Amino acid sequence: MVDLIAFDADDTLWHTEHLYSDAEARFGQLLAPYGITGQIEDQLFGVESANLRFFGFGIKSFALSMIETAIKLTDGRINGQDVQHVIDLAKGMLSAEVDLLDHAEQTITELAREFPLMIITKGDLLDQESKIERSGLGQHFKQIEIVSDKNSASYAALLARHNLRPEGFVMVGNSLRSDVLPVLAIGGQAVHVPYRLTWAHERVSPEELAGARYAEIENLGALPELIRKMTKDRFT
Amino acid sequence: MVDLIAFDADDTLWHTEHLYSDAEARFGQLLAPYGITGQIEDQLFGVESANLRFFGFGIKSFALSMIETAIKLTDGRINGQDVQHVIDLAKGMLSAEVDLLDHAEQTITELAREFPLMIITKGDLLDQESKIERSGLGQHFKQIEIVSDKNSASYAALLARHNLRPEGFVMVGNSLRSDVLPVLAIGGQAVHVPYRLTWAHERVSPEELAGARYAEIENLGALPELIRKMTKDRFT
Repeated sequence: MVDLIAFDADDTLWHTEHLYSDAEARFGQLLAPYGITGQIEDQLFGVESANLRFFGFGIKSFALSMIETAIKLTDGRINGQDVQHVIDLAKGMLSAEVDLLDHAEQTITELAREFPLMIITKGDLLDQESKIERSGLGQHFKQIEIVSDKNSASYAALLARHNLRPEGFVMVGNSLRSDVLPVLAIGGQAVHVPYRLTWAHERVSPEELAGARYAEIENLGALPELIRKMTKDRFT
Repeated sequence: MVDLIAFDADDTLWHTEHLYSDAEARFGQLLAPYGITGQIEDQLFGVESANLRFFGFGIKSFALSMIETAIKLTDGRINGQDVQHVIDLAKGMLSAEVDLLDHAEQTITELAREFPLMIITKGDLLDQESKIERSGLGQHFKQIEIVSDKNSASYAALLARHNLRPEGFVMVGNSLRSDVLPVLAIGGQAVHVPYRLTWAHERVSPEELAGARYAEIENLGALPELIRKMTKDRFT
């Protein structure tokens, strides 16, 4: 019942969201001298959402949207040095140390002995490749898939490309929107490992979750035992 | 002798370089009121090169490097509206119409009947996927590979992943640095289709080319006949 286990990477195998929230905090400090205080987060989210169709996901997109938000909020008064600070924030994020989540290394090492493992992640190509390499976990994964978006269509295409049956495919990740719901929609299995922070874009409403059947575990340490159960009974 | 034919995309299947050179011209116009005239291209190239390890290739990277160059050249005097113009230039590039090169459609359609075809391109994931879709050529390609860089190691990994023999692999592209030399280095075959513009990063010295054995054609219209010859005699 389990042919292959796929993992999301950011905030599933290693911490990422703090990089964004720390950068947003620094961004708020940069804007304070311009008299900009409230609603920065909402404005930034609005710009990011509008820019998704151009820039997609990832840190470069985030940087361009921060710059655009700063220009908007300051009515163009943002100065060059502060724009450079935003670019430097992005470079800092891209070169930040890869900080594995608790249990990630042990669980991946253990499961890799029994199952083919895959990473499916979105964001900037170079950034994701670099983090996979620096994580030291890369050798445990048979395939690495960096995709521009995670939805039912992209999962279906990916499974077809690798000749995988949905019913034997298990996706493990922290995002209900990206790792769980679209996989269930194509007949796959999903394990949700909530992370302490969730980007607004990844949030789902209770209505969207109604009837969704997936497993939820507190941390990756609980995954090997869950997978052993899933190999016996189809998890439903 | 030909198991699979892989194509670069930008400036091989569709025009791209003019988007960059047009944006650079607009960028020069933006900087003129600040009294910045000469050496813009050199400065931008320097910033782009230094930023490659953070941002990789593609339009988002180009936009961030243009902004950084503008800040440097104006000593931070660039105003918010002009920074926004640079971001808008990038959005324009990302949504520009896909303009196929002469012979691309006919040649790809013809070769797809006889050989498995692949696209191997670098740049931003979403941008490349979107262009492949909008080109109308996507259905002729068995595989699409969007990579963060094209070098011997990335070609070797890609061939291994697809169980391809280097000697049966033919790469077709406009860049000697990215499409020809690294493929020859791992024992593959390469066809160079020069484009009228070459980004400084892709240029190679005569020394690097010494002894390199590859085919060169004037345009994609000449490819089917060349491939027919290559299927008989190994091209050397």
